[in-house]
Amino acid sequence: MAGYSTAVDTLIAALGRLPGIGAKSAERLAHHLLKCPPEEALALAEAIREVKERIRHCQTCFHLTEAEEPLCAVCRDPRRDPTVVCVVEQPRDLMALERAATYQGVYHVLLGRLAPLQGVGPEQLTVDALEARVRAGQVRELIMATNPNLEGDGTALLVANRLADTGVPVTRLARGLASGSVLEFANKEMLADALSGRQRF
Amino acid sequence: MAGYSTAVDTLIAALGRLPGIGAKSAERLAHHLLKCPPEEALALAEAIREVKERIRHCQTCFHLTEAEEPLCAVCRDPRRDPTVVCVVEQPRDLMALERAATYQGVYHVLLGRLAPLQGVGPEQLTVDALEARVRAGQVRELIMATNPNLEGDGTALLVANRLADTGVPVTRLARGLASGSVLEFANKEMLADALSGRQRF
Repeated sequence: MAGYSTAVDTLIAALGRLPGIGAKSAERLAHHLLKCPPEEALALAEAIREVKERIRHCQTCFHLTEAEEPLCAVCRDPRRDPTVVCVVEQPRDLMALERAATYQGVYHVLLGRLAPLQGVGPEQLTVDALEARVRAGQVRELIMATNPNLEGDGTALLVANRLADTGVPVTRLARGLASGSVLEFANKEMLADALSGRQRF
Repeated sequence: MAGYSTAVDTLIAALGRLPGIGAKSAERLAHHLLKCPPEEALALAEAIREVKERIRHCQTCFHLTEAEEPLCAVCRDPRRDPTVVCVVEQPRDLMALERAATYQGVYHVLLGRLAPLQGVGPEQLTVDALEARVRAGQVRELIMATNPNLEGDGTALLVANRLADTGVPVTRLARGLASGSVLEFANKEMLADALSGRQRF
């Protein structure tokens, strides 16, 4: 069997290493890049290069920021309340909360969640930096917004335990039925959360 | 709402222009590229640049080939029979046939299919080059391997009509039941093809 040329094979292999892109998708994407105008393909190549060269983590909260800014857009914003800190696993969780546009405090990005089986312990996360931030004294409340699953909950518990002696209240996001969903299809855990967290009208 | 930095937004936008990659996927891919080792991300950027710089179409069959080779790997291969030409729509169709590893002839890639509604007529395809190739006299048989759908069939018909006066036999790939499938789930067209194309044991 004759293969593609080396350059095409290399591109297919590189695309296939992206998460959720299988062999077939990688081939399809490669063909798109071969056919599309050079500007479009080179813009993508350039954008990849740019983020690897310019994007750093915020020195305070570990969200993404451009290299020349030591603090991210949220931490720099004087309208945000720096005494309320919402703890998320990843920058994309932060962005999801920002899109909801109801939160006025700042963040702390852990850059992962505890996953002992994959060798991710507290030292792989930014827990130490969070602890230092809280112990420095400025924080009034810590809102745990890790994912509502086993690993997210474990991570939240670790953080809460570490900071128990500081006296800073640690809360977590409410759980229950998803707005817009139907009760009939809610699973056991959702219903249990919804019952135990029930609130007065 | 605070956005990502410009570099990240640019990358997400560039990824979102790829076919089959929606806004959510683009964000997920961007985060992967931000987190992965620089070598991996830059290898992808470089691979994109490489194909845009180095990949050209074969002068004979319009398959993909590296810039320094005027002919593709199939056309260069002395073991292939240059008198039998299989006509496909895209390089990826050629690759699918090559993976089956049963075809010993050469190819002609049309680089598309007739789609009048999208403004793709014969002049957007490599039909003229195919005609010239056949009229040059070396071709014994033309096998139409365009996609078995309305547009593919229309394209095959156009080519067959154009070359009717040359006397070169034009065949098309057999149609019928997909090997490994079950009759119960075959659709009307497949069953009609299977019946009309039935063969003796």
